Amino acid sequence: MLGVCGGGWHWYATHAQLVDLWLMSQPSDKKANQYGVTPQSTDFNDWYNEIVLKADLADYSPVRGAMVVKPYGWALWENIQKILDGQFKATNHEALAFPMFIPMSFLQKEAQHVEGFAPELAVVTHAGGELLEEPLVVRPTSETIIGHCWAKWLKSYRDLPFLHYQWGSVVRWELRPRLFLRTTEFYWHEGHTAHSSHTEAVEETLRLLEIYRSFARDYAAMPVIAGRKTDSERFAGAVDTYSIEAMMGDGKALQAGTSHYLGQNFAKAFEVKFQDENQKEAFAHTTSWAISTRIIGGIIMTHGDDKGLVMPPRLAPIQVVIVPIYRKENQDQMLEAARVLGTELKALGVRVKIDERDGLTNGAKYNYWELRGVPYRIELGPRDLEAGNVVLASRLGGEKEILARGEAIAGLPGKLEAFQNALLEKAETFRNSRIKTADTWDEFVDLIEQGFFVRAFHCGEVESEKKIKELTKATTRNIPMDSEGDLGAAEEGVCVHTGKPAAYGKRIIFARAY
Amino acid sequence: MLGVCGGGWHWYATHAQLVDLWLMSQPSDKKANQYGVTPQSTDFNDWYNEIVLKADLADYSPVRGAMVVKPYGWALWENIQKILDGQFKATNHEALAFPMFIPMSFLQKEAQHVEGFAPELAVVTHAGGELLEEPLVVRPTSETIIGHCWAKWLKSYRDLPFLHYQWGSVVRWELRPRLFLRTTEFYWHEGHTAHSSHTEAVEETLRLLEIYRSFARDYAAMPVIAGRKTDSERFAGAVDTYSIEAMMGDGKALQAGTSHYLGQNFAKAFEVKFQDENQKEAFAHTTSWAISTRIIGGIIMTHGDDKGLVMPPRLAPIQVVIVPIYRKENQDQMLEAARVLGTELKALGVRVKIDERDGLTNGAKYNYWELRGVPYRIELGPRDLEAGNVVLASRLGGEKEILARGEAIAGLPGKLEAFQNALLEKAETFRNSRIKTADTWDEFVDLIEQGFFVRAFHCGEVESEKKIKELTKATTRNIPMDSEGDLGAAEEGVCVHTGKPAAYGKRIIFARAY
Repeated sequence: MLGVCGGGWHWYATHAQLVDLWLMSQPSDKKANQYGVTPQSTDFNDWYNEIVLKADLADYSPVRGAMVVKPYGWALWENIQKILDGQFKATNHEALAFPMFIPMSFLQKEAQHVEGFAPELAVVTHAGGELLEEPLVVRPTSETIIGHCWAKWLKSYRDLPFLHYQWGSVVRWELRPRLFLRTTEFYWHEGHTAHSSHTEAVEETLRLLEIYRSFARDYAAMPVIAGRKTDSERFAGAVDTYSIEAMMGDGKALQAGTSHYLGQNFAKAFEVKFQDENQKEAFAHTTSWAISTRIIGGIIMTHGDDKGLVMPPRLAPIQVVIVPIYRKENQDQMLEAARVLGTELKALGVRVKIDERDGLTNGAKYNYWELRGVPYRIELGPRDLEAGNVVLASRLGGEKEILARGEAIAGLPGKLEAFQNALLEKAETFRNSRIKTADTWDEFVDLIEQGFFVRAFHCGEVESEKKIKELTKATTRNIPMDSEGDLGAAEEGVCVHTGKPAAYGKRIIFARAY
Repeated sequence: MLGVCGGGWHWYATHAQLVDLWLMSQPSDKKANQYGVTPQSTDFNDWYNEIVLKADLADYSPVRGAMVVKPYGWALWENIQKILDGQFKATNHEALAFPMFIPMSFLQKEAQHVEGFAPELAVVTHAGGELLEEPLVVRPTSETIIGHCWAKWLKSYRDLPFLHYQWGSVVRWELRPRLFLRTTEFYWHEGHTAHSSHTEAVEETLRLLEIYRSFARDYAAMPVIAGRKTDSERFAGAVDTYSIEAMMGDGKALQAGTSHYLGQNFAKAFEVKFQDENQKEAFAHTTSWAISTRIIGGIIMTHGDDKGLVMPPRLAPIQVVIVPIYRKENQDQMLEAARVLGTELKALGVRVKIDERDGLTNGAKYNYWELRGVPYRIELGPRDLEAGNVVLASRLGGEKEILARGEAIAGLPGKLEAFQNALLEKAETFRNSRIKTADTWDEFVDLIEQGFFVRAFHCGEVESEKKIKELTKATTRNIPMDSEGDLGAAEEGVCVHTGKPAAYGKRIIFARAY
């Protein structure tokens, strides 16, 4: 009955083969602790995979490498979106929507771009029951179709800048998918801007880098290194790529956001040109930038521990969970008391959940919410109620306090802020302890082997970067910005690998990366 | 260099053929009025197409039938999303995200579903440089992949209900695309819920119908008829489809939202089953529901006039535009005064835009914002400033008032509400004047020919509906709910077409439709 496909396809009888593959990639419970999770120290990768599934953030899908983002994971993404969207609007960017399909020929117009993305493309060849004359690509990123549309819209320098962004999903066929970190379809925003001058476009690129850096630090409690990528790590088609690089709990790096100065590369490929103030024709200077659902993987691996997730309060879908403690005879009374408490906290802007589930022990509920990383838990029992107290347990450290009810309520917004700061401080202390400087090749190899971020001089040669990767699995993460303090300090030296004079005027960051 | 495609494709040298097609579909300016728009009375379809483009709501894309939603159009959609999303969350629905690709074999599991959607599918056959073993469909709607995942997640009646929804886009290959009304890719939310009983699922279906009805009325100022679809107009795979039907400015109907009771059809096809309270295995009862960017077309055609759009204030991206009137010598002073006024209005929650563009006449600016349907315009000139006055112009009627500055500011929120109500009242008066009752076939044909909604008895036979459509181009819109007052009143009679006894126990609505 499916006439759309011509004949000749090999059909799965079922998709059982794929299901088997996922099941194999799922953890065995043998190694798990009392939270049902493999400890980080036993196997960090298994720990990660189990947390994502068991904390109900995401699930595998029947299509290879694609994920289902479950309500708890999507609520986190919605909070991320809300903060970033507000910052884009506050800096005069406008949301809009370009189509998900791009004619194949568009990708070929920018030579480096197509070379970078061709191996990862998903291609629509049939539609409406017919073979298409030109295949359509499901966007891996939208520079090309946006360039095409801008060329149509842009006439004069007065039309510029274009400050556009869109939320949505894109597709890149991944060989070794992992939930949130590398999925064939992932969610993101992509910003695209066009300017009349080089200077303005570079300013925009750096403005976004700073928005990303401060978002990661101030909301996700992830200290990151902002910097410029070396040539070999640039976005396909960019003049300069800037990134924020975070350190995960196993010491590996995660690129958590990128901002690209595209020069006039795409403008020339798509004829994005305008009449300048002197009536001369000029090509626009463009930028693009993105943060994706990958950052959720970063949050998990920055803050999580053997009990499970730890959510930074500013992004947490649930900041406080209330667990009413009751027997059959006082169930109604205790549920009601929990609801009243919840309402009072909500009135203070706290995101509260009341665990009204029946048939679970209190201990099981505590573990459930600890696994999900809720910053604070309030235990409310009959004796507490009578005494006008509540028991407050923090997900950090896990200590419990008995507090007067009023004090607990009034104090929670402040405690959430303190929790946020403590989380950042913890991550910073960890990170700072794991950034080391290497001046010799032996030191370098040794530190990388031990899982450190390594600050070293490099000659800037792509061949040397390749060789270093081959030998140590480490890549250049970025060239830290001057604003990165000691990490970005000017310094001269010789390449840790080739012994040639160092490029960049400072040490750069090497690490193994996700 | 694009190795992903095998060989043998016919490539466009350029996409010039497609561009030509769009240009042909674009209006000639010969018929346009002083706003640059063909009057509604001259050609309603041309008027619509021109408004969408000239008001910068959307543009054509290089991919056939897909649209680019421009910032002004997307801002309207964001406001629609915000309201509906709040209502979904308030009724305990959870947002999440299922992948855009669906294995082709999934669609075949529900016989009616695949029959309905097969002709409209876009199919990915290649990915990652290889021919896929099983082709993937770009979701036309997600019942199938969601059914598959639910089957994995659902164990016990305690897990139910699942109350899920997602925002995103879907693809249905359209033969006769029109911006917003029928595009190959369109934006929407799709809600999907699973329940343990028939009763609960039907309640959910009707709850959403009511959310849609009141959203259309209270926010879009679109009076709609809520009702059940006849058998021939049901969603492919549903037991019952409910819709809200709006009347456009040319008298034609627009289905603006649908809510489906799917019975156990999809649950059986995907084994969405659970242990009920008596430890017996049971299939879930499911629903699905959606409103898409089509409703933007509905807003345009409900409220627009020969000057352009009219935006309902509750959804308007810009509620008030301030046009400062100045000469070179007082430009700074007048711009500053406009900004101060804008800030005061923003503090009251009014969405304000200040038109600071230079080099345009005031008249050109007025036309520009009238075309875009901004409800109120404030003209602020030097003499007004001195006298402490502003000039306020309403997009409805176009009368101007001179008001004391403070009075204008304080009064605007109330005026916007009054504007919203006036818009609804106007739409209701128009609609009510164009719903007529027909008891004979001749009356029926005559009224349809004149562009009325026609209330008539019908026998319920699919064959007769087909014949009526063939003869008059009218289709059944819906069987109005009892709550629709006179329109839904119980009444017995004989079919206006076949003379057989009427089905449904009331008259139903016939109209030509978009």
